[in-house]
Amino acid sequence: MDDIVKKIVVLGSTGSIGRQTLDIVRAFPGRFEVVGLGNGFNTPLFKRQIDEFKPVFISTMGEIEAGYGGAKQAPFEDIVALPEVDLVVAGTVGCAGMLPTLAALNAGKTVALANKEVIVMAGPLLLAAAEAHGATILTVDSEPSAIWQCLEGEVSKPSRLIITASGGAFRDRTWGSLRDVTPEEALKHPTWDMGDKITIDSATLMNKAFEVIESRWLFDIPFDRIDVTIHRQSIVHSMVEFADGSLKAQLGPTNMGQVIQYAMFYPERQANSDLPRLNAVSMGSLTFEAMDRTLYPCFELGLEYGQKSGTYPAVLAGADEAAVSLFLQREIRFTDIPDLVSDTLAAHRPVVNTTIGDTVDASRWATENTLARHSKSTILS
Amino acid sequence: MDDIVKKIVVLGSTGSIGRQTLDIVRAFPGRFEVVGLGNGFNTPLFKRQIDEFKPVFISTMGEIEAGYGGAKQAPFEDIVALPEVDLVVAGTVGCAGMLPTLAALNAGKTVALANKEVIVMAGPLLLAAAEAHGATILTVDSEPSAIWQCLEGEVSKPSRLIITASGGAFRDRTWGSLRDVTPEEALKHPTWDMGDKITIDSATLMNKAFEVIESRWLFDIPFDRIDVTIHRQSIVHSMVEFADGSLKAQLGPTNMGQVIQYAMFYPERQANSDLPRLNAVSMGSLTFEAMDRTLYPCFELGLEYGQKSGTYPAVLAGADEAAVSLFLQREIRFTDIPDLVSDTLAAHRPVVNTTIGDTVDASRWATENTLARHSKSTILS
Repeated sequence: MDDIVKKIVVLGSTGSIGRQTLDIVRAFPGRFEVVGLGNGFNTPLFKRQIDEFKPVFISTMGEIEAGYGGAKQAPFEDIVALPEVDLVVAGTVGCAGMLPTLAALNAGKTVALANKEVIVMAGPLLLAAAEAHGATILTVDSEPSAIWQCLEGEVSKPSRLIITASGGAFRDRTWGSLRDVTPEEALKHPTWDMGDKITIDSATLMNKAFEVIESRWLFDIPFDRIDVTIHRQSIVHSMVEFADGSLKAQLGPTNMGQVIQYAMFYPERQANSDLPRLNAVSMGSLTFEAMDRTLYPCFELGLEYGQKSGTYPAVLAGADEAAVSLFLQREIRFTDIPDLVSDTLAAHRPVVNTTIGDTVDASRWATENTLARHSKSTILS
Repeated sequence: MDDIVKKIVVLGSTGSIGRQTLDIVRAFPGRFEVVGLGNGFNTPLFKRQIDEFKPVFISTMGEIEAGYGGAKQAPFEDIVALPEVDLVVAGTVGCAGMLPTLAALNAGKTVALANKEVIVMAGPLLLAAAEAHGATILTVDSEPSAIWQCLEGEVSKPSRLIITASGGAFRDRTWGSLRDVTPEEALKHPTWDMGDKITIDSATLMNKAFEVIESRWLFDIPFDRIDVTIHRQSIVHSMVEFADGSLKAQLGPTNMGQVIQYAMFYPERQANSDLPRLNAVSMGSLTFEAMDRTLYPCFELGLEYGQKSGTYPAVLAGADEAAVSLFLQREIRFTDIPDLVSDTLAAHRPVVNTTIGDTVDASRWATENTLARHSKSTILS
């Protein structure tokens, strides 16, 4: 069993998930071969990764000289579909990951998907593509991964999913008091170390709405059977309830490495001394509190529009991406995020009988519309 | 799937596990057919069960008129081996359950085993019998059941089992302060409603040692990879840790019905509105504290002798059964239990290359020796 070498492509290789994926590759010599790397704009780090992992193919949104490190440059969509690829790790962020993810699924690949926005945008369409081409989506998101682990081996469908929420950076403050928080404050997550976009989404709890939507599609369970509980310690990553009243929970340290590694080795489990471990024997107190949904406007908005059919979920994702980016650039206040997203959703004319192309168009429209309305309001004000 | 009728034999039908098993049979008309019932000495209830469930065969340690309810009387060992039997629920208590359990395994049956003492006495021998005859042991013990549920679908062996312990009736008292506790006090379990023997074993924590031993055999994991944690709420019934640092826990209400039902329907899960449910969304605080093993002499004794090969584990079980019985009859003090068990273990001359017959003989010897030494010491004192 130890001799199988998985040939992998890592998209978003210089991001938080990408770097941790390559840490795992490093920790298990002979178990993974990096066939392709895809990157955004962090060219210096990307070059170092090329030097170290010697991928055959690379793709980048930045600029890199032809033939650097002996790698061939090719579009993201082509690299993920190479015949020799066993696993695509989609560590991309936001709507940009949609077309590479779709290409990998259309090529019948196993996709370890950290880029949850694409499932929010087009869950049913991606699942249909996976089914049509014998592809598999493995979640790399700690809460859905917990649910996945709890469902392994169960023949009966779950009766309820209980997603845990740390509550994010501002869990002890009311929404009204957050008007003047800075990006630096919002980026201080109480329990998880993650990329910027997801950390801001965690602070607004939009991320928790996204996890509900992601779980709804990945585990084929109605929205009204997914609950969220405030669990401040982030040790229980989520729970599943079964018809007979039994529940299973997955627990672990607050470290994405374990979540990534589970998808990379699935169904095997491998010891990795680089990763922190939990001392479950004396872990003290774990708390679970019902969540007051009315306290979190982004969560409400996310759940409302994430459940709609057509292009609304894509607009939700695209508008949120723009709003978070504006906040990180100090262009808007933290508390403007839901208002901006809400206004874009209100302006949207939804497309029914949606295709993936429609969702990409809708999310781009939403991003542009959100940015444009902000500039306009800034000029006017 | 709903049409399969399981033909079952319930041993110990008038005991706590037996009665709850029949409650589940009642709750699912058309899913179970009671082919046989086995009973100890509670004849009035046994007769009512015969009237209601109309078993073809019965076996009792009490007296019942020939042909009562149209049922044929036969030895326990014969009833469990009937060709039509799909599932034997061993709701018996103590060493008496050994030979019927062995007979069921030798006949290739699936045995839902609540009678943990038989696994303590002869775990490796019973597993060998099961393997030789294609039989299956399904645990009906909440902590091992939790571990079983957490291991379902996992291809890699667990790296550690974490068994939870409520701490029993006297968890907030020191051993030294328990000299004068009454059977009534010891029978007040803080979280579980169970039979008398197991409730006293829970108060001494001998039961927790038995669960460690049971888990060691059922899940084929070394003793030094089984931990116990004090979890006062009894909501997390146990946990499993994997090589990658991920843990799974099984949670539920403190109700044996769910544990019994899981084994009866396995691998299916069925809704049963008779059983209590847990509200996991707002369950408040769950605590996990390292256990100070030196506080519990029965736990230490149980672990020490339960790990030994040969007939020591059977003597442990037999001596404990006698000591608990003496305590319930107010013949000895609560704090005498470990001393009495320890003296019997010290007096034992172990048999190596043990057979099941040896374990039965050893446990009988231990029971008799424990009772006899007590009478002797009473006469002398």
